[in-house]
This record gives sequence, structure tokens and C-alpha cells, in this order.
Amino acid sequence: MNVQEHIDQFGTIDGELCVGGQPLTRLAARVGSTPFFAYDRSLLDARVDLLRRLLPARVELSYAMKANPMPAVVQHLAARVDRIDVASAGEMQHALNTGISPDRVSFAGPGKTPAEIRQAVAAGIIVEIESPTELRRVIAAGEELGVEPRIAIRVNPDFAVKGSGMRMGGGPQQFGIDAEQVPELLRFFTGGADILGFHVFAGSQNLAADIIAEAQRRTVDLVGQLAESLPAPLRYLNLGGGFGIPYTERDTRLDLESVAENLDRLVTGPIAERFPQARPVIELGRFLVGECGVYVTRVVDRKVSRGRTFLVVDGGMHHQLAASGNFGQAIRRNYPVALGSRLSAPADEEMSVVGCLCTPLDLLADGIPLPAGAAVDDLIIVFQQGAYGLTASPTAFLGHPAPAEVLV
Amino acid sequence: MNVQEHIDQFGTIDGELCVGGQPLTRLAARVGSTPFFAYDRSLLDARVDLLRRLLPARVELSYAMKANPMPAVVQHLAARVDRIDVASAGEMQHALNTGISPDRVSFAGPGKTPAEIRQAVAAGIIVEIESPTELRRVIAAGEELGVEPRIAIRVNPDFAVKGSGMRMGGGPQQFGIDAEQVPELLRFFTGGADILGFHVFAGSQNLAADIIAEAQRRTVDLVGQLAESLPAPLRYLNLGGGFGIPYTERDTRLDLESVAENLDRLVTGPIAERFPQARPVIELGRFLVGECGVYVTRVVDRKVSRGRTFLVVDGGMHHQLAASGNFGQAIRRNYPVALGSRLSAPADEEMSVVGCLCTPLDLLADGIPLPAGAAVDDLIIVFQQGAYGLTASPTAFLGHPAPAEVLV
Repeated sequence: MNVQEHIDQFGTIDGELCVGGQPLTRLAARVGSTPFFAYDRSLLDARVDLLRRLLPARVELSYAMKANPMPAVVQHLAARVDRIDVASAGEMQHALNTGISPDRVSFAGPGKTPAEIRQAVAAGIIVEIESPTELRRVIAAGEELGVEPRIAIRVNPDFAVKGSGMRMGGGPQQFGIDAEQVPELLRFFTGGADILGFHVFAGSQNLAADIIAEAQRRTVDLVGQLAESLPAPLRYLNLGGGFGIPYTERDTRLDLESVAENLDRLVTGPIAERFPQARPVIELGRFLVGECGVYVTRVVDRKVSRGRTFLVVDGGMHHQLAASGNFGQAIRRNYPVALGSRLSAPADEEMSVVGCLCTPLDLLADGIPLPAGAAVDDLIIVFQQGAYGLTASPTAFLGHPAPAEVLV
Repeated sequence: MNVQEHIDQFGTIDGELCVGGQPLTRLAARVGSTPFFAYDRSLLDARVDLLRRLLPARVELSYAMKANPMPAVVQHLAARVDRIDVASAGEMQHALNTGISPDRVSFAGPGKTPAEIRQAVAAGIIVEIESPTELRRVIAAGEELGVEPRIAIRVNPDFAVKGSGMRMGGGPQQFGIDAEQVPELLRFFTGGADILGFHVFAGSQNLAADIIAEAQRRTVDLVGQLAESLPAPLRYLNLGGGFGIPYTERDTRLDLESVAENLDRLVTGPIAERFPQARPVIELGRFLVGECGVYVTRVVDRKVSRGRTFLVVDGGMHHQLAASGNFGQAIRRNYPVALGSRLSAPADEEMSVVGCLCTPLDLLADGIPLPAGAAVDDLIIVFQQGAYGLTASPTAFLGHPAPAEVLV
């Protein structure tokens, strides 16, 4: 996907990028400092609407808030999705602050501490247990607090999904309980918690609809087998998500219609037949918020070193770890970058955009075409920054101030 | 370098690692929460002593506080080294808080904002300019504030250093001013700042003494040429640092004696002859503090998935980005890890240590030998965590609490 397509999602006014209807330089003036993250409320809404329109009505949407925990974003989405998934007791507090009902909040993660489990049971949220130890701890917390814990079992499936940015199921994993161990675990379960169902999550950031569809089919099959061991009817069926977004020029959009058609077949077929009390949950983080945000940073220097032009910006890798290629990538590829304050100018000179940190790792764009007139005070945009931007970056590195975040 | 050598640096009591003379479980009780970083004061002192003993007396030591900006560490070292190097106005405030004289503080970095430059000039620290734009800004700030700025020119050398973890000199770079541009810049300089000298930094995390020595020789040669264009005698000669520390089993220690011998030849020879008013500065971050710190995290779960044993800890990649292999490494290699609360037990079972985050990137040790008895509540140690640990990691990721830091 090319940069122009990213620009078109936001729109332009007088040659400047628009975020939430505001031209970029005006927005920067409102924020009062650079760098900053800006998230577009109408693009968030459009993304939820797209999913609601295409996915079967019976499917519930869960927002995995780890993708973007900014309180205003979580609050905005809490009113528009069905559930929120949290990854820590800290995230749980933010989720509950929105007013969402605790039984609509799920908590997954392989290293929940005993203290976090106690907090989750006290809150009444759904604890997705990832090991026999966690099951014991949940039951003990429930007894101590006089509360019946709500739980789901996170299952490490007996199949792997290809093509994911990160594979999180199949083979030996720290995530979930191996599928083949689940029946025995349930056989020895003697009560003390309400086991609602299962969560099977095979991988994230997948752009291949056929692979996502296959994972969903196999998940429904697997849950069909496992549900026979449950002490009560299945009421929670979290199919995971893993819907990817395009980051580099090589990436193409996920064919969401094709994913939706497959889901529709599953929902009207095996799910309706076998799990009448369960509405399947699709859990999305990056896909909901990733394309709705940009990172805005100001050019503080332009220099030529041995024939190469560098734009040095006031932001960098400390807010953009993934875009700099330092977060799980084996090969660095440029994220989409544009000169947001001069979109009408032709991109006719090759430049590199580097951050302000004292390390060669701090590279935001390596030899990309930008307008020759790019100068100090211009605003550089990095697209696809609504997810895993600020919180996935080492913000304290070198002691620079934290960037602002705005929802516009 | 193997794990036992790391353990031996700290010492043990009753089968537990000692930090600052305290056995690990007692220290953990004092801190009151895991995970945490612990830095050993006596090891910091020993490292400074080693450098003072081996390096020529005329060499000044500068602490690049970006490596570990914990205020207690900076304060401790401020009393023991000659200078502090800062990478931002934020770091500058911490450096000045120690009471160090401003003329002993240097500020390097390719993306200094105009506001930061104004702050630095007001403070009276040495601004290492990295571009003609920065020179103009420094002079303008000095005029506005009625202060003569102290500056040095950071030079991008016309040679490259092999074997560095990160190459930061030679070829086109965002760092410094190309050596061949310096004479012209100085020809057009008409005053407004006191140009003290030069900083040439070719690369960091180098374990090869011969390459460091060669870089220092070439740096002295280069500065010899450039100094002819200076309007006043050279009074600042920052040779950089780049001394590496061993992280993986494959790494061997830097031969510091050999580096020192070469420096001695330079100091007594060309430096004494050509720059009688300059004491050469060796600027070190990682080498001063890196080996003096450990990261301590508690086992919260032990699970077996399809034949593989996982210890799940309450810390992870959000505090250990480099150790997880997600910070500039092309190939992930295990950092030294030990079961700090059971050092006497034989390491007789292969296990993986994973963090508490919902991502397969959160891998602290991949299939290493650990005691078979490793269990919930045991304390895992990651060594070589005195530098680029906490501040180089995405601490806000997934909303977990920040870890404590103690200097013991």
C-alpha cells in the first residue's frame, strides 16, 4: 500500500494532512509541542462501522486495549464495541473506568501475578486462565473474596497459523493451555469458578484472509471437541483476531469480506448448532485503531553528509520503536512517511528521516522520496501509528519529554 | 563469557547472588516488589578504579549518562569521574543537580531543539554542535542571553571503525559534521562562541582493542589537521569511547590494557606535543555501568507445553528490550541469566524464561540450562543490566507498573 492511500484516508486541506478535520499545522499549534500522536475519531468510527457492516450480526467485537490504551480512545471505543480485553491489572482499571460492565472485560496474559488475579476476581471480569496454576489461583481468590470467579480457558491450539506477524499458537508456547491438556484439567475440576468457555488465539498481524479463515474453522472444530468436557454449556467463544494492517509498500490490505463470509458460514452453521448460548467474539486491537493514528514530528535540522540528505526531527525511535525497525523485525522496511505540511509538493528528492537520539538505530525513513523544499519546522508524518506506537516504545530513553496524545 | 564469571563479579552468600553485599532474597524483601533493577555501588567504584589505574593520568573520564540516568547512579559517578555527557535538556538538569560544574558537562546529539540549545547555553555547558544550523543557533542563543557559549564540534570522521555494535562515524551520517566540511565552517566563523575543540566518536560497544586503538590514532591525526583551522588553541579533545562489554557467551572481554597502552603513546606523543592545553577525554557509558547492574524478576508460573519447560516471570521485555533481542539485533542471542536464589543447584534442565507480556517477542532466555527445581517465587537474574536496561525499554507496554531501581 503506498503513501498516497494513507494520506487519502485522512484527507487534505490546502496541501496539508487533515486529522479529525483539522489541518496539520493548526493541530500542531493546538497541541503546542511536537512530537505528538494524533488519533482521528471519525476514522475509529468508520473502522467499527466497517466491521459491523461486514461481520455477522451475532459476532461480538472486543477491543484489545493493549494496542492503544489512551484513556480517551478506550472510552470512545467502549461505547462502540461489545467487550474490552485487558493485559494487566493496570489496563483493567482503565477499562472499568469507562463504565463498561465487568462481565464484558476479559484478562489474558501468561504471567498474571497472584495479586493481579485477586484484583480481577474482585472486579468480576473474565479471567482467561493460561495454566493450571492460574486456575488454582483464581479459585483460591474466589474463595477468599466470597465471589464466584468468571473464567475462560485460553487454549494453545494443536495447529499453527502461517503468515502471522507473530505466531502465538501451535507447538510449545507460553500462551494458553495445550489443547490436549484441557480435557484432563476439566476432568479434575471440582467447582469454585464458572467456566464460561474458551479463547483460542493463533497469531497476530495477519494479512492473508484464507489463513485467518482456516484458523477460525479449525478453532471452531477444536472448541467443539473441548466443549464436551465443560461442566456447563459454552457461553464464551473467543476466536481471537489477528487481522493485520498494511505497514509497508509491499503489504496489501486484508480481504475483510472474505474473512466475514467464512465467519458467517461458521456462525450460521456449527456455532449456531453446537453453541446456541455463545456469541462468538472477535478480538481486535491493531485492526481497530492502527490506521486511525499518525505520529507528527518537526524537522529541527536538515543536513547533507557525503551526498546524503538527512532530515533530523524532534521525535524518533523513543516513540517509534516499530517504525524504526527495532521491534521484532528481522528486516527493516520503511513505514509510510510523508511531509504532512507540504503534501502538494512533488516528492522529488531522496532523503532519510532520522530522529534526535544518539544512535544510528534511530532511523524513521531510509532514503525515501520527499519534497526537495523540506526544511526546518516542516512537519513529518508517520502513518499507521494508532496501535503499538507510544506504549510500545522506550519513551524514557535519553530523557526527552513524553509526547502528547490527542484524539481529534 | 559464561554465566559463572558474571556471578563471580557479584559474589554469593549461601547459594544466593549478592548485590551490594546483600543476599538476593533479602534485597528483594527490602525493595518490596519485583521486578527491579539493582546496581552495585562497589562494582561501580571498582570499574572507575580499573580505568584510573590503567589509563594515562592525563586522560579525563566522562560519564555518558544516557547509559544509566538513575539520579543516584549519576550522583555517585559525578564525584568519581571528570565530566558528564548528556543527550537532552532533561539529562542536563539531572547532571547539573549533582553539583558538577557546567563546564564539565557536554551535550551531544543530532536533533537538539532550539529550546534545548537555549537551555544549554544558559547553563554554560559545552554544546557539541552537529551541524552548521546548530552553530548558528548556539551563537544566536548566546547573543540573546548575553553569554559566550562554550562549544565543541562533533566531527563525522573520514574513516569508519569495524567491529562496533553501532557504527556512528564514517560515510554519510546524521552525527556530527563531515570532517572535510569543518575547515570551511571555521573559515566563515566570526565569533560569538568559544570553540574549545572537537569530539570524534566512531562507534559503540566494541570489544576489539586493536580497532579502538586504531580509531584513537586516526582521531588524533584528524584532530591534528582540523585544529589548524581553530581560532584558538585546542582545549577539548573528546576521543569518544566505544569500549564494549561482553553480553553473550561468544563475547570475550575487551583488552583494556592494550587500549591503555595505545592511549599512553598518544598522550605522551602527539597529544602532548600538539595540544598542550588539552586533556583528552574518554567518554564511557555502558563500559562504566553496564556490568554493575542486574535485573531481578520473580517466577510466577512454571508450565510445560509440548515437551518444553517455561518459567514465566513477572518482568519481561518491557524492562529488557535488548535482552529480549528486540533492540537493534539481527540475531537474537541469550544474555546471561541465572536462578539467583538457587545458585548452588546444578543447572540440569533446559528451560525457557519468558516474560509476562502477551507477545512471543517477550523471551528472556531461550532453552538455557537451569536447576530442575526452579519453581514459582524463585528469583531470576539477568546480568549486564546496568546500562540501557530500564530507559531503553518500553515500560508502559501493556500497563504494568514501573520496576524499582536501587543502588546498593
